[in-house]
Amino acid sequence: MFFHRQELQHTVKPNQPDAVYARKLQEVLGGQYGEITVAMQYGFQAWNIHIPGKYRDLLYGIGAEEFGHVEMLAIMIAQLLEKAPLGITEDAVQNDPTVAAIIGGTDVQHAIVAGAGARPVDSNGNPWSGAYVTASGNLLADFTANANAEMQGRLQVARLYNMTDDAGVRDLLAFLLARDTMHQNQWMAAAAELRAEGAEDFPVPSNFPLKQEDRSVSYQYLNFSDGPAAADGSWASGPTPDGKGEFTYHDGPTTTAPMPPVTHPDSRFYGTTELPNVVEKAAGVVQDKLNKE
Amino acid sequence: MFFHRQELQHTVKPNQPDAVYARKLQEVLGGQYGEITVAMQYGFQAWNIHIPGKYRDLLYGIGAEEFGHVEMLAIMIAQLLEKAPLGITEDAVQNDPTVAAIIGGTDVQHAIVAGAGARPVDSNGNPWSGAYVTASGNLLADFTANANAEMQGRLQVARLYNMTDDAGVRDLLAFLLARDTMHQNQWMAAAAELRAEGAEDFPVPSNFPLKQEDRSVSYQYLNFSDGPAAADGSWASGPTPDGKGEFTYHDGPTTTAPMPPVTHPDSRFYGTTELPNVVEKAAGVVQDKLNKE
Amino acid sequence: MFFHRQELQHTVKPNQPDAVYARKLQEVLGGQYGEITVAMQYGFQAWNIHIPGKYRDLLYGIGAEEFGHVEMLAIMIAQLLEKAPLGITEDAVQNDPTVAAIIGGTDVQHAIVAGAGARPVDSNGNPWSGAYVTASGNLLADFTANANAEMQGRLQVARLYNMTDDAGVRDLLAFLLARDTMHQNQWMAAAAELRAEGAEDFPVPSNFPLKQEDRSVSYQYLNFSDGPAAADGSWASGPTPDGKGEFTYHDGPTTTAPMPPVTHPDSRFYGTTELPNVVEKAAGVVQDKLNKE
Amino acid sequence: MFFHRQELQHTVKPNQPDAVYARKLQEVLGGQYGEITVAMQYGFQAWNIHIPGKYRDLLYGIGAEEFGHVEMLAIMIAQLLEKAPLGITEDAVQNDPTVAAIIGGTDVQHAIVAGAGARPVDSNGNPWSGAYVTASGNLLADFTANANAEMQGRLQVARLYNMTDDAGVRDLLAFLLARDTMHQNQWMAAAAELRAEGAEDFPVPSNFPLKQEDRSVSYQYLNFSDGPAAADGSWASGPTPDGKGEFTYHDGPTTTAPMPPVTHPDSRFYGTTELPNVVEKAAGVVQDKLNKE
Amino acid sequence: MFFHRQELQHTVKPNQPDAVYARKLQEVLGGQYGEITVAMQYGFQAWNIHIPGKYRDLLYGIGAEEFGHVEMLAIMIAQLLEKAPLGITEDAVQNDPTVAAIIGGTDVQHAIVAGAGARPVDSNGNPWSGAYVTASGNLLADFTANANAEMQGRLQVARLYNMTDDAGVRDLLAFLLARDTMHQNQWMAAAAELRAEGAEDFPVPSNFPLKQEDRSVSYQYLNFSDGPAAADGSWASGPTPDGKGEFTYHDGPTTTAPMPPVTHPDSRFYGTTELPNVVEKAAGVVQDKLNKE
Amino acid sequence: MFFHRQELQHTVKPNQPDAVYARKLQEVLGGQYGEITVAMQYGFQAWNIHIPGKYRDLLYGIGAEEFGHVEMLAIMIAQLLEKAPLGITEDAVQNDPTVAAIIGGTDVQHAIVAGAGARPVDSNGNPWSGAYVTASGNLLADFTANANAEMQGRLQVARLYNMTDDAGVRDLLAFLLARDTMHQNQWMAAAAELRAEGAEDFPVPSNFPLKQEDRSVSYQYLNFSDGPAAADGSWASGPTPDGKGEFTYHDGPTTTAPMPPVTHPDSRFYGTTELPNVVEKAAGVVQDKLNKE
Repeated sequence: MFFHRQELQHTVKPNQPDAVYARKLQEVLGGQYGEITVAMQYGFQAWNIHIPGKYRDLLYGIGAEEFGHVEMLAIMIAQLLEKAPLGITEDAVQNDPTVAAIIGGTDVQHAIVAGAGARPVDSNGNPWSGAYVTASGNLLADFTANANAEMQGRLQVARLYNMTDDAGVRDLLAFLLARDTMHQNQWMAAAAELRAEGAEDFPVPSNFPLKQEDRSVSYQYLNFSDGPAAADGSWASGPTPDGKGEFTYHDGPTTTAPMPPVTHPDSRFYGTTELPNVVEKAAGVVQDKLNKE
Repeated sequence: MFFHRQELQHTVKPNQPDAVYARKLQEVLGGQYGEITVAMQYGFQAWNIHIPGKYRDLLYGIGAEEFGHVEMLAIMIAQLLEKAPLGITEDAVQNDPTVAAIIGGTDVQHAIVAGAGARPVDSNGNPWSGAYVTASGNLLADFTANANAEMQGRLQVARLYNMTDDAGVRDLLAFLLARDTMHQNQWMAAAAELRAEGAEDFPVPSNFPLKQEDRSVSYQYLNFSDGPAAADGSWASGPTPDGKGEFTYHDGPTTTAPMPPVTHPDSRFYGTTELPNVVEKAAGVVQDKLNKE
Repeated sequence: MFFHRQELQHTVKPNQPDAVYARKLQEVLGGQYGEITVAMQYGFQAWNIHIPGKYRDLLYGIGAEEFGHVEMLAIMIAQLLEKAPLGITEDAVQNDPTVAAIIGGTDVQHAIVAGAGARPVDSNGNPWSGAYVTASGNLLADFTANANAEMQGRLQVARLYNMTDDAGVRDLLAFLLARDTMHQNQWMAAAAELRAEGAEDFPVPSNFPLKQEDRSVSYQYLNFSDGPAAADGSWASGPTPDGKGEFTYHDGPTTTAPMPPVTHPDSRFYGTTELPNVVEKAAGVVQDKLNKE
Repeated sequence: MFFHRQELQHTVKPNQPDAVYARKLQEVLGGQYGEITVAMQYGFQAWNIHIPGKYRDLLYGIGAEEFGHVEMLAIMIAQLLEKAPLGITEDAVQNDPTVAAIIGGTDVQHAIVAGAGARPVDSNGNPWSGAYVTASGNLLADFTANANAEMQGRLQVARLYNMTDDAGVRDLLAFLLARDTMHQNQWMAAAAELRAEGAEDFPVPSNFPLKQEDRSVSYQYLNFSDGPAAADGSWASGPTPDGKGEFTYHDGPTTTAPMPPVTHPDSRFYGTTELPNVVEKAAGVVQDKLNKE
Repeated sequence: MFFHRQELQHTVKPNQPDAVYARKLQEVLGGQYGEITVAMQYGFQAWNIHIPGKYRDLLYGIGAEEFGHVEMLAIMIAQLLEKAPLGITEDAVQNDPTVAAIIGGTDVQHAIVAGAGARPVDSNGNPWSGAYVTASGNLLADFTANANAEMQGRLQVARLYNMTDDAGVRDLLAFLLARDTMHQNQWMAAAAELRAEGAEDFPVPSNFPLKQEDRSVSYQYLNFSDGPAAADGSWASGPTPDGKGEFTYHDGPTTTAPMPPVTHPDSRFYGTTELPNVVEKAAGVVQDKLNKE
Repeated sequence: MFFHRQELQHTVKPNQPDAVYARKLQEVLGGQYGEITVAMQYGFQAWNIHIPGKYRDLLYGIGAEEFGHVEMLAIMIAQLLEKAPLGITEDAVQNDPTVAAIIGGTDVQHAIVAGAGARPVDSNGNPWSGAYVTASGNLLADFTANANAEMQGRLQVARLYNMTDDAGVRDLLAFLLARDTMHQNQWMAAAAELRAEGAEDFPVPSNFPLKQEDRSVSYQYLNFSDGPAAADGSWASGPTPDGKGEFTYHDGPTTTAPMPPVTHPDSRFYGTTELPNVVEKAAGVVQDKLNKE
């Protein structure tokens, strides 16, 4: 169960409205790596989890905070939109390029659809999608996904920090950056703990029997491009991070196989096939003649 | 530039057609973490990169291999569909529940749209989306995204391995599993190398000045749920993985702020606001009367 | 801020797993009118609201409950998936049509992507979309949208109730049906209260000056089809629900206007236009000749 | 069957082109609550209906009009785009901020894709989606959905009215506002008639046996937030709009249930589970050793 | 304006319900090449057209017929769904594999969402999308798009014809196949007429001055794969269909250019760049020390 | 298999950065008819093909070139973004309308999400979709789809050519225009060759027995609009392009059929039906009374 308290975790108050910036801020609310994504992602991972205890508690503990971050960003955006001009109309601003320019930078659905309110979309107006969520049931994979989400998320907030000089907005972003720092660290710690406890290991999934994969190519770097520096990295020689092999380097594939023959599905799919068509076509010509007669 | 050779990296030949399994295999071709995703993701990261040399060569080197994996899966799926029954029709199978059951498990667009061919969609028929791609320009973030993609991808292939007993299909999956093992290892090695070289560090982005974030909450675990075991993990006390702090644990938030006042946008957005409406409404009543007169 | 408690509002325990039904239940979790929609919709309406007090408190009060319903359905679905067979494989069930049939009715991404877990998608696997949310800032319009969502939602739950005879599932659905009954009633009451208080009225938005619309056609029923019974309803004669007019009935339009002339955009858009092309084409022929020379 | 006549219901002629406004007007053509939505929604409701007569005739009668509104908006948009500048190019406008600003506010696909033509998208360029349509087969639910659509639609047109001072555009919008007034009234009248005739009632669906829902919570307002004013509304005490109960008010839930135990799906999904993994991992270590030997 | 008549162009009456087939038929109603696509496509082409007269009349004339085809397919689907079983429930069919199999093949949203009604989606439940529509303003391009749509559409109907033996369904499909034959022919005739009249020509757009393109590679077949038979076709030698050149054949590219240097955007995007980072990192280390002090 | 070479087919070097134009260029990279579409389309057609030899070699030969065009456009866009201003911030440009105007015309996700990099989206930020791909297995249909794609693509590049005066950008576009000219010609030649060889013919699919369609309406032009000029074209009289009939012209339909009766699905779908509801409602009233007692 979720309970709501009409308080925020941090002050949410811009110094002044800025409809152009409101649009940009939508990215970390409703974008691929926005707050809705992490809130829902940690939720689904918790609801689907297969072990009780600390990992589940961690998912619930952070997940609920993220729903509060969704709220903080939505409320910030609504305030940034407060004095948004309606558009280029009888206010005699039609020839003022500054106003026109501002209109050009806004999300027009903020005005037309939401009446100066936040929306569950990204900075280009793409609706948030459930396809952004990762919840596989394998915690080492999923905690890596979470670390990834927090990295991309913090990166976007850092960029947005430099796109405004509104002290009120920056104050909120400084808070969110710190929370992203924390969560990035937490998912890395949790992934390490899963390995330390022997619950999971690399390569993910570690409990798939390795002998069932084609081990002959498990540690070969097959370079399908012509960049010679690719051989210089720690990914081309030396021990592998999973501790189970040695990297080797190869220009291009070490194995090849011929193309299989083409398929011949049921002729009633009317695909193009060579000989049958000739026969059928002959029949078709006859039929056509009959049809016309 | 890309050059194509009419050979495959590994044999692609099922022992027998299986239209139900063909649908399932679409997941690792055109799903969120399928081969199209990694091929395009490594491509865009390479095309956008800001440093020449080994990292770019690595992205190109693996990326081109993944386009070949897209091809292998598409050709496998086309073969699995080869003898697909057309549906429940005059072949007198309408009352055969086995046939009916098989139809129920297939992707009907394989038949109707593609005429027994592979499609750029996932196992539920959702079209592949450019929104699956991550390419931020920050290589530590992006290599973590790549490791994540290879983990989720290998996990899905491992599940699919157990969903068939066709030796030909399993032979291909064993090959792909091994390549996923390799690529998982490579992205982890590359992420480590970025840090070892001092190019990037945690928290991502490491060159955002930490003093600009609200350091007072950078390492506080604020547990917004009531699971007490959340305090037991290495994410709740001790040094943080970024080497820059110490985790502390707190039940709930350590800071709060009141809700800001509600917004009052331009009245011509016709949102519901209290006092203005009363005034306007009075005017509206008058207007209505005038209208009717 | 949202706080999570590791309890549920009602028992969530199916009598037995049922992967086919798990797929169906996704509709009211992640579909157009599922619990994610109402939770997010009430949230965005609250965050964007322009008046403090009872209406905002109502949105927050119901919204937080709905996030808990999201959780209950996700946990139910995970349990329904618990014993899901992996697929048609070495378990020798390949020729058992009952098992094959069950596979056909499941969401295969439940297995391949989520490892027997719930997902933020509908019963056909379409990801939940932010486009399902309505939050316009006009409370009479939005409370009508909320009533609509609760009606469609309760209708879907009622249908799902008849699609299972699992007493545990039905017990949960009986609880959700009752909550939908409550919320349907609440939004109707809230809409009525807005009107009684004079805050809003029909037609929405009531504070747009009526004299600015073309009042001559505001209450004309223009029947563009040939169904004569259309004239029999209360929508074709008598007073209008907004209390501001009288319905009149007309076969077809009462007004017409000629098509405007076609447009002639810049010729560098290379659209097909009549005369200019002839001229340009002549020039093009000359140019081609010159090109070839 | 649909028949087309090359006339319009009202004059469609802007005083002058305005490519920025053309983009905005797309919202009520191809947005969530645009004319394509209502045309298709009334169509699908009519095609799926279960009773002949006046309700079906009503759906057909309004639906066909809405297809004509799609046409009027498309033709208006094409005219608004007529003189659209091509972009910032050799016309020496590159340094004119007014022109640059205008470009910024346009839908660039209007130029690049449609050659100065209207498109089936919203004001942010999101393609119209079949997911916007509601057609459940329950007419009381669907007529409420229709009233909702006409309210949101009229609200958006009213906002757009204030975003232009072009008399020609406003003339068309004044006509559409009036038709939305009419249709809003008609769906409210039709919903009331369904109830008056005893065909449907609240709560929707009214013919689901109420005793099958958990009546103990059917009229309890469970406030999951801490806003005390939530208790002040008519939704917290007194008779319910469905005429079948009395509202009661409660701070938070009146019922709770413990979390069910976590699930344990087939181990071949490779999810993270505690004990089994330890065992399997031991086996895995042995296997790995064997693999390396 | 569109007018509706409550008649159909052809009998729409299946011999018996078939919910599995109803799902399949959705493809040609709401799929990429279904009737909604062509109806909307011809509509938008007409509304955006730049020349009055026969081409516009043709678009309107066929477009309105296609809206009637949308209606016919929707009504057919509703009838096919009429006796659809509710699902596996108390009707004691739970253990009947035939019934289970049928459920597996249906679109479950037909039941849960539409109450046994048609929906604006394809056979996998993907909502119809405005992105399916092509309307560029260049009539030769667009009539080719129309011919393509009619070809793909007729192909799908032909496949569907073989997926049922219901004489009533086949009777409708036979009618639609004939209309597709007609429209395929009409768009080919219209494309030819545009060329014959000199309004448009190949390559599209023919009024872009050819000398502005890089004519040195305009007729070179650059084979980027290793299939030698590619040189055998009429596309590798001889005159080109546009009548303006001669095909030549080349193994691989005839031109190459080096990769441009990598980009160096503003450092506040926090992308990974080599030298700057070293400097900044040094500064960062100092800052971190200062932060901790 | 695909192999990558770190060279480009043509110089890719803008004279200067232009973030506004970078956004526009996304259309031909990641739009409906952009390079990703044709690369993937020719790939899927090749992987699904049913005949070996020249047609397959052609698909592979062009397809691989198109992947290189994806790369060229991505690299061009990255360079156009190189000096993109971060936004309106402390650089004291906030009041400079030229800068503000530029920001308004950019894709803000280029900055926030990609850190000044290209993305797999169109010029409005819609992610590329697998739904853009056509691959039916019928080569005459598919080569027509390919010709269509090359026509729309070349048209868009031609428009983009006129939207910039950057000589470096125009140099690349001139190259791409020429390649589009080539590919347009090739697909037209290939379609003609299929017919000349007797492999396929019009109407597509030509091997569906014509006698199975309703030949009485196969060549009737049924004009559902009132445009009289529609009868003037070669599509209204004379021989049909498929060589199998004669066009005839008719005002409106030549056939009609009555609407079938409405459907009556299972009452547990709770749709609105007339008489049953009256009965059930009576029962419901009784039940309600019992419920309240």
